[in-house]
Formats: sequence, structure tokens, C-alpha cells
Amino acid sequence: MSAAEDAAAAKRCSPFLAALSAEKKNEALAEIRAALLAGAGDIAAANRRDVLSAREAGLAAPLVKRLQFDEAKLIDACAGITSLAGLDDPVGRVLSARELDEGLKLYQVSCPIGVVGVIFESRPDALIQISCLCLKSGNAVILKGGREAAQTNRVLFDALLRAGRRAGLPDGWAALLETREDVAELLSLGSFIDLIIPRGSNEFVRHIMKNTSIPVMGHADGICHIYIDEGADFASAEKIVVDSKTQYPAVCNAVETLLVHERAAREFLPGLAASLQARGVTLKGCGRTQKIISCEGASEEDWRTEYLDLILSVKIVSSLEEAASHINFYGSGHTDCIVSSSSENAGRFMAGVDSANVFWNASTRFADGYRYGLGAEVGISTARIHARGPVGLEGLVIYKWRLYGEGHCVAPYAEGQREFTHRVLPKELP
Amino acid sequence: MSAAEDAAAAKRCSPFLAALSAEKKNEALAEIRAALLAGAGDIAAANRRDVLSAREAGLAAPLVKRLQFDEAKLIDACAGITSLAGLDDPVGRVLSARELDEGLKLYQVSCPIGVVGVIFESRPDALIQISCLCLKSGNAVILKGGREAAQTNRVLFDALLRAGRRAGLPDGWAALLETREDVAELLSLGSFIDLIIPRGSNEFVRHIMKNTSIPVMGHADGICHIYIDEGADFASAEKIVVDSKTQYPAVCNAVETLLVHERAAREFLPGLAASLQARGVTLKGCGRTQKIISCEGASEEDWRTEYLDLILSVKIVSSLEEAASHINFYGSGHTDCIVSSSSENAGRFMAGVDSANVFWNASTRFADGYRYGLGAEVGISTARIHARGPVGLEGLVIYKWRLYGEGHCVAPYAEGQREFTHRVLPKELP
Repeated sequence: MSAAEDAAAAKRCSPFLAALSAEKKNEALAEIRAALLAGAGDIAAANRRDVLSAREAGLAAPLVKRLQFDEAKLIDACAGITSLAGLDDPVGRVLSARELDEGLKLYQVSCPIGVVGVIFESRPDALIQISCLCLKSGNAVILKGGREAAQTNRVLFDALLRAGRRAGLPDGWAALLETREDVAELLSLGSFIDLIIPRGSNEFVRHIMKNTSIPVMGHADGICHIYIDEGADFASAEKIVVDSKTQYPAVCNAVETLLVHERAAREFLPGLAASLQARGVTLKGCGRTQKIISCEGASEEDWRTEYLDLILSVKIVSSLEEAASHINFYGSGHTDCIVSSSSENAGRFMAGVDSANVFWNASTRFADGYRYGLGAEVGISTARIHARGPVGLEGLVIYKWRLYGEGHCVAPYAEGQREFTHRVLPKELP
Repeated sequence: MSAAEDAAAAKRCSPFLAALSAEKKNEALAEIRAALLAGAGDIAAANRRDVLSAREAGLAAPLVKRLQFDEAKLIDACAGITSLAGLDDPVGRVLSARELDEGLKLYQVSCPIGVVGVIFESRPDALIQISCLCLKSGNAVILKGGREAAQTNRVLFDALLRAGRRAGLPDGWAALLETREDVAELLSLGSFIDLIIPRGSNEFVRHIMKNTSIPVMGHADGICHIYIDEGADFASAEKIVVDSKTQYPAVCNAVETLLVHERAAREFLPGLAASLQARGVTLKGCGRTQKIISCEGASEEDWRTEYLDLILSVKIVSSLEEAASHINFYGSGHTDCIVSSSSENAGRFMAGVDSANVFWNASTRFADGYRYGLGAEVGISTARIHARGPVGLEGLVIYKWRLYGEGHCVAPYAEGQREFTHRVLPKELP
């Protein structure tokens, strides 16, 4: 089947998926879990072939590691499915309820988005996680995984389809695309695909965002900042910077630029620099920073760079406002933190910085769906509509308006014979 | 200034607008109202020039009527501003609150989207309404009105800017574009514009949706359906169809296609046809319909047509499922209604029809923000993310995550020394 045929089939079965009960969806998740465990041998064999090809092709070691999908990872993925099944159904929740007039009742009820296209990196557990999140939220899903994982993905996907059939799902609920041409086609299928979630490198995500008129949820860059305010607790500030930079530097919520108030810099920077350099961090400073600590010079380009590595750029600013402006101009709207002893300054920073996550006295690394307690994470979004920051299952649903009448017509209201009551009702469908 | 300069200025001042208190925004709304009333003479004079040019250019009478902006309409618009000022501030609401661990508290807080671009038809009150909605929700706004209203819009916009200055707003809060080239440029300004709201003809809205990667909120078509179920109350059904078709046929929530269950058709259609034909409605029926009532034949194209006129296409279907499939295939996801005596059938219809508004025994004309009790309406959206159906002020806001810590780092959690509590907190900022 072509990508367009897959997408059309997905669209056709989406009303069926939208109407599935929570029990039915959880049964299907249990079938998937069982099929994956039953297929463990085949999955491992396919993955060994992918890993071998990747090594032969000279793929970098961290990428090969991400590609590996052994039994331990399969068991983790299955545990994830069990915990997903335990979450509340995101579909069918009554978000608001209002009587418009006697016998005329309006309910805003959550429902699936429809068909979600997900393009993801060469990490086989991503295929399982994404399809299960879509199933739980009643969405059909079109998957396109990284080509290095092609054999693993095919075996995983076959297990999914088999399990879906056993649970009574129509085959169209999930489809697997395999070529780059399929992705190009996917981006043009606006009449079938309602949302695209791209995961992967900055350039890749930016490419997707620029080349489709279908809504996209995700993030390209994570250029996160920490601003050290005048009068901050320096011991606490140092711990937060070290954690934000070194706890896991290769991820989007690691800090990339440190902004320091000019009245804090002289006292704070030398100790911090020693502490970071002892952990192998390279510092790149503005001119004023270089007068206080010994480090490389930072260029204009540094302020726009997501290092994803043990590198930190440092800039001295004259005010909180300058820090906020720098962040709004150079940042990526992901996660930015103020370290300050003043709740008033923290409030100004959190209102003035235009990012998905704004923190006061906490590591930027907390920006994560699991840490936020969202249960399951679809991804992190730097979009400005629908969902922002770490996105849980609610990011995969929208709502419809259900109006229950008893033969009500508009004319009597338009002609002034009747008036609306607009009375709030309990959030329960009749 | 070019569109890009306007948009950059809007983006620069958006953190300032986001931080405005409800009082400040309501003061600005009061200034706008005062400036409009003070400028009534100039506004009327400019509008007379626009109307004269439109008449000379041979603009159709209904369009000229929509262009007219007399004192009564100005007073209506000002009443709208007063009622908008009275609505709750959509910004700063705590949507969820959770303790992650002792002293580490997470709040999901509503905030403006940022910069909204609105392209609207030649109806001068739209300029006032849209700018005030954006101001109330803390968004900067880039306006582009229809060229027939250019002189009126310029005078209105000058009054807005003057009022904004008096209320202490930076000029960048609103900008007025005047040419078609500006619109083309606007669609490419994804780094400054966060949302585009197009209003106007189907073709125009579809053109905008296809030609930008900026999120778009709105609707192109309103191809609404009513399905008459087997066993429906025919008297009530007839009233609902007549109201949905004739109460105001030129609007997006008027019904365009009637679907009738085959076991209801023979009894229901003759009376309905007489009633509609008496009101000047032309019927176009499928082959089976033509065997019951005398009417024109409907072609495949009719099922996809939004007549916006006193025309109704009629099709006989063999089941509720066939009706739902027809609606999902040919409809526009706007508003669709079942007339039925069975609550079970109504539930199946409302779950299976994939539209923003799904009604049971009520006229499709109820799909409207005012009737829904939303206070103020930004527009009606057939998008599948962010906001769907009639959209109030909440459609102009998103949220950010505020995390309040006391020096918390991620390492102790990652290393298993501490665990998250994930305890629900009252929805109040500290």
C-alpha cells in the first residue's frame, strides 16, 4: 500500500477507534504485550541483523546503542504498556457542561484527534510506545521509524497488527511506512493526517515543520538557560547549574547558556568554573566573563547553539530584563530557569520569559513528562498552541461539542421569544 | 513598516502584553471604547467614502451592507467591548497544580499564545472585535482587513493605537497591514507569528491553510447534515430541518444535506418538501428521493457543496451507519445532527460522526459561541487540535509550566535516592 492508501484506511477506521471503550482499548494493549513477549525470539533476531548492518555501515557507537533492543528493553517496554493501560482513559471526559435552555444541554467531551503521523528515530522501543499511546487515546497511527531499525520495526509492527486483529481492531488502526519517499508523501496528506509528531535531530524536525501544512507537535531545539540573579544563594546556584549541565548533557532539557547578573558574577563565577571544569565542561564566555575566569570566547553563534555536550556558554547581563530579552531572542522556548532569593524577581522572570517551562531554583532537567507526573509522555512541544512543554496523553485528544435537545430551534431565540439560561451543569453526560 | 517589521515588533512586545494585569487590560479596553466614541464623526466619514467607492465599483448589495458602519453599529461594537471587559481574564488561570516532591511545586498556568495574525472580511466591526479579543487575552495582533473597508479600517486602527498609547501599551501590540503582498509575507513569518485566523470565503480560507506552515484556526466549509432516524418524531424533525435551512441560510451552520432513513422517507419527505418549498427552498434529491417527492436530481457534486442558499440536497440511506459514513466522507467536520427518539442511536451517531459539533434533536444553527454561552467568539474552528467548534477567549491562550523549587536537582531522583510524590495541590499559585 502507498502512504496515501495507508492514511486513507487510517482515516476510515478512526470513528471506530474513537468509539472504543476504555476496556476494549486496554484489552488490545494486553494483546500487544502478550504478542511482543511471545515474539521475543524473532524480535531479538531481527534486531541483531539491524545492529550488525549498522556496525558494518560504521554507525557511531551511541547510535548503535540506541538501536539495540534486547530482552531487558523488551521487558521494560512491556512494563510501559501495563502502566499505560492503568492510566485513566483520556477519551470521553466531560470538560464543561452547560444548560442553554430548558431541555437543551451542551457538553464539551474529549475525543481522539483522529490520525497521527509519527516519524521517529532508530530506537525500536519508540515504535511500541507511540503506537500504544495512540491506541490508548483512540487515534489511528501512521509510523515511520529510522531505517537502521527497519528489520526490528517490521517484526514489532507485525506483532502489533496480529495483536490488534485478535482484539478486534481493524487493520487500518496502525500502518508502517518504510521509505523517505513515504515521508514526503505523508507531509502532503492533510486530508487524512490530523497531526504529525516528528522526533529526531534539530534539522530533521525543522525540515518537517517547514514542509507541511499539517499541524506539527514537537520541538526542534532545546536551548535552555539559567539566569543567576543578584543576591542568589551561590551554593544552591552552583548545584543547579552543575546538575542542569552534567547530569545528562545530550538531552534537550540540559542547560546550554548561563546568564549571570553583573553584581553576582565576580563572586559566583570562579567557584562555578572550577566545579564545572573538574567535571570536564568547557566554558565559553562573553568579554566580561573572560575578565573574571579563564575560558574560550563565545561568539554570536554560541548564543544560538544547542551543544548537547559538555560545553556551556556564559554571559554577564546588567539586569533581569536583559536576561529575559536574551532568552526570548536566542532561546528556543523550551526550558529556562532563574536562581534567585527574591520571589518578586522570580515572578517577573516567569511572566516575562516566553518559554514552555519556566523554573525558579530548580534544575532545567526536571522538564520531562515522567518527572511532571503526566504518566506517559508523547514528547516535549515548543509549539504555541494545543500543548506545550512535556505532553501526556491529553496532547493526543481534542474535544467535540455534544448538544442534546428536545426539538429546539434557533428562531425563537433570534426573534426574542426565548432567552438562553446558560446555567452550569455537573460534568456528567445524561 | 513592512509586514516583517510589524511582526518583529509584535513579537518583541508580547512578553510585556503577557505580563499585563487584568485591570490594565480592561483599562485599555475602556480607552479604546472612549477613543472610538470620540472619533465617531471621522469613522462615519471614512466609512461613507468606502461605501461610495464600493458602490461605484459595483460591489453586490449584501457586501455593501456588510461594509456599512454607521453610528448604531459603532455603539453595538462599543457595547461588545464593555461586555468583553466584564469577562474573566483568560490569562493566569492555574489549570493544574502538583507537588513533585517536598518544596518542588509544578503549576500549569494559562498564558497568551503570543502574536496572532488575523485576516478578515470587509466588515469594519471585525477589526474592533478581533483587536479587543487579542488585547483581553494578552496577544499582540497583526490585522489585515478587506480592501473595500480600507479607509474605515485606517481610522479605526488609528483610534486603537491612540487609545493603546494612553493606556501605556507599546505600539507593537497591534499592526494594520494593507496590501495583498503583506498577506503573502505574513504567511511566511513563522518565527514571529504564532497563529493565523483567516475569515472569509471558503476558497480564501483554504488558500491560507494550504500556503503556510504557521498554525491556522478557522473553518473553510460548513457542510452540515441532519439525519432523520427511523422512528423519529416527524413533526419535531420538520421544525428542526426548516429552522436549520431557512432561519439564516447564508451562514456556515445552516444545514446543506438531509439524510433520511429508508424506513422514514416515505412518510416524512412529502410533508417536509411541502413545508420547505413553501419557504422557497429548492430540493435536490437522490434517485430514491425522486421516487417519493418531485425535485431536481442531486449529483455527486451536491454532496460536497455548501450552498449558503435556499437549496437542500436530500439522500435516503439504509442505516445510521451509512448516514455517519456519508457525513464523515462528504462533510466538513462542522455541525451534524441526528433527529431520533432513541437515545442509544443518538449516542452511536454522536460517537461515530467525526465533527466539531454533534447534535441530537436540535437545529444546527445553535453551533455558535454566543448561543453556547462562551461570552465572546473568536470564530468557529474545524481544526483537529487546540480548539474545535465555536471558540471563545480560551482559544487565544495556551499555558506554560511554572516550577518552584528550593535548589532541587535531578541527580538524586535519577540515582534512586529520592522519589517523586506527585501529589495534587490546590489550583493556586504560591
